[in-house]
Amino acid sequence: MALKETIATLSTPAFLVDLDRVEANTVRMHEKASRSGVHFRPHVKTHKTLEIARMQGRGEPLPITVSTLAEAEFFADGGFSDITYAVPISPEKLGRAASLQKRVGRLNLLLDSMETLAAIDSFCATEGVLFSVFLKVDSGYGRAGVDPRTPEALDLARALAGSPSVTFAGLLTHAGHSYSVSSREAMLQVAREEVEAVDRFASRLRESGVDGLVRSVGSTPTASVVDTFEDCDEVRPGNYVFYDAFQATVGSCTLAECAASVVTTVIGSYPSSGRLILDAGALALSKDSGPEHVAPGFGYGLLCDLRLRPLPMRIVSLSQEHGKVETHPGASVPVGTRLRVIPNHSCLTAALFDGYAVLRGEEVVDRWVPVRGW
Amino acid sequence: MALKETIATLSTPAFLVDLDRVEANTVRMHEKASRSGVHFRPHVKTHKTLEIARMQGRGEPLPITVSTLAEAEFFADGGFSDITYAVPISPEKLGRAASLQKRVGRLNLLLDSMETLAAIDSFCATEGVLFSVFLKVDSGYGRAGVDPRTPEALDLARALAGSPSVTFAGLLTHAGHSYSVSSREAMLQVAREEVEAVDRFASRLRESGVDGLVRSVGSTPTASVVDTFEDCDEVRPGNYVFYDAFQATVGSCTLAECAASVVTTVIGSYPSSGRLILDAGALALSKDSGPEHVAPGFGYGLLCDLRLRPLPMRIVSLSQEHGKVETHPGASVPVGTRLRVIPNHSCLTAALFDGYAVLRGEEVVDRWVPVRGW
Repeated sequence: MALKETIATLSTPAFLVDLDRVEANTVRMHEKASRSGVHFRPHVKTHKTLEIARMQGRGEPLPITVSTLAEAEFFADGGFSDITYAVPISPEKLGRAASLQKRVGRLNLLLDSMETLAAIDSFCATEGVLFSVFLKVDSGYGRAGVDPRTPEALDLARALAGSPSVTFAGLLTHAGHSYSVSSREAMLQVAREEVEAVDRFASRLRESGVDGLVRSVGSTPTASVVDTFEDCDEVRPGNYVFYDAFQATVGSCTLAECAASVVTTVIGSYPSSGRLILDAGALALSKDSGPEHVAPGFGYGLLCDLRLRPLPMRIVSLSQEHGKVETHPGASVPVGTRLRVIPNHSCLTAALFDGYAVLRGEEVVDRWVPVRGW
Repeated sequence: MALKETIATLSTPAFLVDLDRVEANTVRMHEKASRSGVHFRPHVKTHKTLEIARMQGRGEPLPITVSTLAEAEFFADGGFSDITYAVPISPEKLGRAASLQKRVGRLNLLLDSMETLAAIDSFCATEGVLFSVFLKVDSGYGRAGVDPRTPEALDLARALAGSPSVTFAGLLTHAGHSYSVSSREAMLQVAREEVEAVDRFASRLRESGVDGLVRSVGSTPTASVVDTFEDCDEVRPGNYVFYDAFQATVGSCTLAECAASVVTTVIGSYPSSGRLILDAGALALSKDSGPEHVAPGFGYGLLCDLRLRPLPMRIVSLSQEHGKVETHPGASVPVGTRLRVIPNHSCLTAALFDGYAVLRGEEVVDRWVPVRGW
């Protein structure tokens, strides 16, 4: 990349990272965790880069959370030695996990079923491995995890505590339902539920003799709205490094904290029908439909000018390489005009790009390469 | 990749190409074009691989259509020398297009505005280049293109014919609205509109002295439902190599013609609530919501067993690395079970993978690498 490249010269579409904003976002969350006295294990799946992971630890290779084994291997190669793979492990991936475990200080796996524990026990019996495992707890999201109020959850926890193949590290939950609420108050309520789910379960387990479990929580909305982290031992937010149009709309951040965007060029302009075509389509923005529950018809990202000021226009549809914008009849936006889009879901948008253009102001000062695949 | 890898041993999620089906799909469309006596210039944006592009030409490096300059450059490197870049060119990309043009036999650009023509004229005046250009015509989709019934369209066509910087190659349309209909009859009607839009406009232009224009049409639904291509000179379908759950649902193909799928593993099973979690989420399937207009609540792809037989289950939501499936209470699908998903939109799903596992039956016989980026 030539020196002095700017948002006005980059070939479009390109994924932009605003360095000042990422720095501010990473410092703020790190300070909140420090001030709260909890262990900080941020997720790296949003950005998938060594550079931002280092910023999340303020220069230190802190403990991290990952969503794929490819991420775990990439960050292990990059010097990160304490990694939680926070997706339930499938039996077929145990061999790869075992190889990885040999070269990091700590690899925590996740499970939520007796079946998987049996698969691990069987694997370990032949391979001579000891895995560190978190039990996934459902705090109301209804995706993965055990319901901590059930006898089955207690049985599984006891089985984990008694297994010869695993170190039972703790209870882990992700309050994904914090994405479905529409007010700060509701988000705070989800934050309480998230903590209570693991805190109460940990208490129940202590009563039955299972002690020393880490209570691990984390979603960007809940981590953003609380003042301090309480009644938990570890927090794992991830999206907060970039935030996005969804988070700004539901109130977990301000627009000025959104650190990721896509620069695009107007390639079609139809003033008489109030329509534009951008060179950013579904492969540059992702088809995430955004905060439809609070802003119906929000569109496929927030369309802004080059200084990230929102425009009174909506990206109404995306095909593979075209973004269709509705403006108002007569609006004059010539072909060749550059615009920026704050994505609906920065994690999904970032993953579409092989590299990020890193900005200080309008100037490209670096290029970062995320890990891809599984 | 080790020999004798199969769909039972591949690390999941993985993108699978069924070679028998791609061969049948490519042969069928090629034969239809040959039988119709039209020029065949298939789109390669669905698969983005040299291997399938060669199959589209039955072994010959036929003329192709691309959706990015990165594709154009990749296929030029791979021996394809007649390329149409079928997205309106933006002025900033003219330099790159000019470089590419010097190393292929023919590079056709696309435009739909006087502004872009002026930018090309200005560029060519200083750079000494001559571009071959198609005029993009809107046949009812309402995305890009001129309305061929308007005086402005006629003015632009005349300006193209009179420009010293371009060879006016023809009229190009894409009936994207064929994706919005719900019956074969309606699709045939769109196919007629698609052809008529360019055919009538070509006639009007002939009357005003502009002759010899190629009438180029193409969308997979319209190209699939017609028996022969009539009243046009060139056809450009692309998705037909893979088809997908959308195309099968709206009737442009059968399920047995769907040649792309994602193999995934069940990583969570909750029989009491009739729910499964797959290791294929939004980054493996894309958040394309599928044929909602004809099958509300269709889900994020068609869930099948390993032999591609549809299951009575729906993928109801996707997060980054989790696919959530609703089945029926009591359904027993153990953790570790492998399933396949026929994606809603194969173009978007394929683009999420760095490589494709190519199957004969259940055995992986090759690995193909698509071009990425812009």
